[in-house]
Amino acid sequence: MDHTTEVLLGLFIVFVAAQIGAEVAQRLKMPAVVGEITAGCIVGPSVLGWIKVTEPLEVLAEIGVVLLLFSVGLETRVGDLKKVGRVATLVGVAGVVLPFVLGGAWALLSGFDTPKAMFVAAAFVATSAGITARVLQELGVLNRTESRVILGAAIIDDILAMLLLGVVTALQGGDGINVVNLLLVLAQAVGFIAIIAIFGTRIMRRSSKLLEAPVSPLSPLTISLALCLGLAVAASFLGLAAIIGAFLAGMATAETQQRHTLEKQLVPIMALIVPFFFVVTGTKVNLSELGNPSAIGALLVVTLLAVVGKLVGGGLGALSLGRRSALIVGIGMVPRGEVGIIVASLGLTAGVFTGTTYAIIIAMSLITSIIAPPALGKLLAGMPKDQPTAEDTAEDTADTSLLIPVEETGHE
Amino acid sequence: MDHTTEVLLGLFIVFVAAQIGAEVAQRLKMPAVVGEITAGCIVGPSVLGWIKVTEPLEVLAEIGVVLLLFSVGLETRVGDLKKVGRVATLVGVAGVVLPFVLGGAWALLSGFDTPKAMFVAAAFVATSAGITARVLQELGVLNRTESRVILGAAIIDDILAMLLLGVVTALQGGDGINVVNLLLVLAQAVGFIAIIAIFGTRIMRRSSKLLEAPVSPLSPLTISLALCLGLAVAASFLGLAAIIGAFLAGMATAETQQRHTLEKQLVPIMALIVPFFFVVTGTKVNLSELGNPSAIGALLVVTLLAVVGKLVGGGLGALSLGRRSALIVGIGMVPRGEVGIIVASLGLTAGVFTGTTYAIIIAMSLITSIIAPPALGKLLAGMPKDQPTAEDTAEDTADTSLLIPVEETGHE
Repeated sequence: MDHTTEVLLGLFIVFVAAQIGAEVAQRLKMPAVVGEITAGCIVGPSVLGWIKVTEPLEVLAEIGVVLLLFSVGLETRVGDLKKVGRVATLVGVAGVVLPFVLGGAWALLSGFDTPKAMFVAAAFVATSAGITARVLQELGVLNRTESRVILGAAIIDDILAMLLLGVVTALQGGDGINVVNLLLVLAQAVGFIAIIAIFGTRIMRRSSKLLEAPVSPLSPLTISLALCLGLAVAASFLGLAAIIGAFLAGMATAETQQRHTLEKQLVPIMALIVPFFFVVTGTKVNLSELGNPSAIGALLVVTLLAVVGKLVGGGLGALSLGRRSALIVGIGMVPRGEVGIIVASLGLTAGVFTGTTYAIIIAMSLITSIIAPPALGKLLAGMPKDQPTAEDTAEDTADTSLLIPVEETGHE
Repeated sequence: MDHTTEVLLGLFIVFVAAQIGAEVAQRLKMPAVVGEITAGCIVGPSVLGWIKVTEPLEVLAEIGVVLLLFSVGLETRVGDLKKVGRVATLVGVAGVVLPFVLGGAWALLSGFDTPKAMFVAAAFVATSAGITARVLQELGVLNRTESRVILGAAIIDDILAMLLLGVVTALQGGDGINVVNLLLVLAQAVGFIAIIAIFGTRIMRRSSKLLEAPVSPLSPLTISLALCLGLAVAASFLGLAAIIGAFLAGMATAETQQRHTLEKQLVPIMALIVPFFFVVTGTKVNLSELGNPSAIGALLVVTLLAVVGKLVGGGLGALSLGRRSALIVGIGMVPRGEVGIIVASLGLTAGVFTGTTYAIIIAMSLITSIIAPPALGKLLAGMPKDQPTAEDTAEDTADTSLLIPVEETGHE
């Protein structure tokens, strides 16, 4: 089989596995994303071995999660996010501190020295916005207050996690911490987000006409996608997750008059590309590393601590929303997804983690990603999908000329 | 800059370059594809050097051309193709024989020995369906007889080119030719195409309901995309170009009731991915290899022969359509695009070509791809876009329930 055939076959297997997984999950009343991750685990090296995760697949997965967060941003108005700013900050900070403390305590008790224990603890911290966002989008509840708090907290979470990773990485060298450098990184990140959130949205609000200046009738879509890729690059360059940039690009684009057309045009694009992200995430579970009782025991403890840390930390931060909403927010922060996997990979590369610690953290990241979606689905079932604000309603009806009739497509 | 940032930056540059190139070309009244290829040449290693063509970019390019031919197939009815079968066969055969003879003659006169000259000649043969198809789609003339003849001939062309490549590769070893083996390959290829064209279309015609069986409302799209990838893999496995499989998948899907919805859903997907194919094609021009007068002279002769061979060969085959149509068909067969590039790469790997011969054949492939589209555009300007048949009209109006109102999006 020549190389092109092999690559195309890989794409075909991943795509079909995603469709079958999603279908089975939905028939079992679970979110499609759970089926896609499980399908990835099954076709991946640790069960069937049909898929080797090569760089092209990784890149498709990255494009998938970038587009996913862009589309989530497109459904988020900056005004709505501002309203939840205080609660989101509380959730983000508490949801970082508690898991870090719990993770660090476990690592110290397991015999890691202090610098290494701090690294392990860092892997407990970051929330994967991608997985929760997809579940919220599937359920159609992105407009609820809880969803906005989760998304806002995920941004704060990501900034703190990035700083923490900087600190723990510096600690490994034994050189102590360069406070000036860290503050510089923090200032850059906060500055970038503030500039896009404040000026980016204002500029886009006034640029709706500009989006249609080029000859191609698809120019609003292609310009928005270019903006999405551009801000993803910028965020990644500043050491933030690329998806934060994509989310901000989506939020800025949400201020244009073409937002509804763009939302519709993104649906088929996402149907093709987003599944690659979830299947590739699933293929990374290496079940054989977890084949002994002590590893399983450790995994159970780590997962429990990871869940409790976010549930209690995030939930406490959101207590002002009421107990059920606080629970929803807490659960929404549980999935570690690709962020946990990235920290684990860094730890392995830096020689901080053994193969087993690595496998445990990867497995914890995935288990938290698999258990949270059905729980969220159950909690949100039967609750109203929407809490539209006055601003929303006024602006949404202002551009009916651009609205194309809504087909029943959903978001999967 | 870390690896993720670098990869995302590459995607961003390619995508933005494509948009700017397409915009400039369209303002100059040229097809967008010319601008995209030129943009690729400019951002590529031989001018600005902003882009290294890595495997992920190659794979995105491959997905792009596969989706492009799928969407072209979706606009092609098997019944219409049958009507042009005789002419398309003539065009395909004559359009292979004449360029092969001319290319071989040039190679022999340039001092290549006979086996190597045959390999060079093979690079003159294959037509790139991708580039012509995109131009015809941009102009909205896929329903004209000339377009159908070109697409039919491109399939026949590809089968013959594949056989020829088998022959010339065998000749390099000096072992003579295994006729049985070649006939086997031919039988497989013809069998595959016939089975899909005859049974695939019939099965799809009766399966419109099945496409909607899964839970997801997007299932007709995802199932069609899976079919597209699956047949692309199958074609590639049989030694045909993957795009032939994608084209057949599109043609089979064109028989379903959902074809119009699918056509509309493919538009935004293609806007994202297809430009990668044309920009990546453009990056492969290495201008520095052509920096001396003798190379430029050889390039001019080779390009002239390549153009004349297809123009006269293809045109003669289509003479029964009238002179202007024959000219359109002849020009439509001129672009060598990625197929010429593939043969050149094989020649380089097999040690048959020098760096200069390689650069000349790559440049010829690209020049033919750049000059044919504007010529096609000029010849087709002002001609009626459509020659609908009775069958077409009857079936097209049968599924208005599934039609979503046509927005002015075009196909770029």
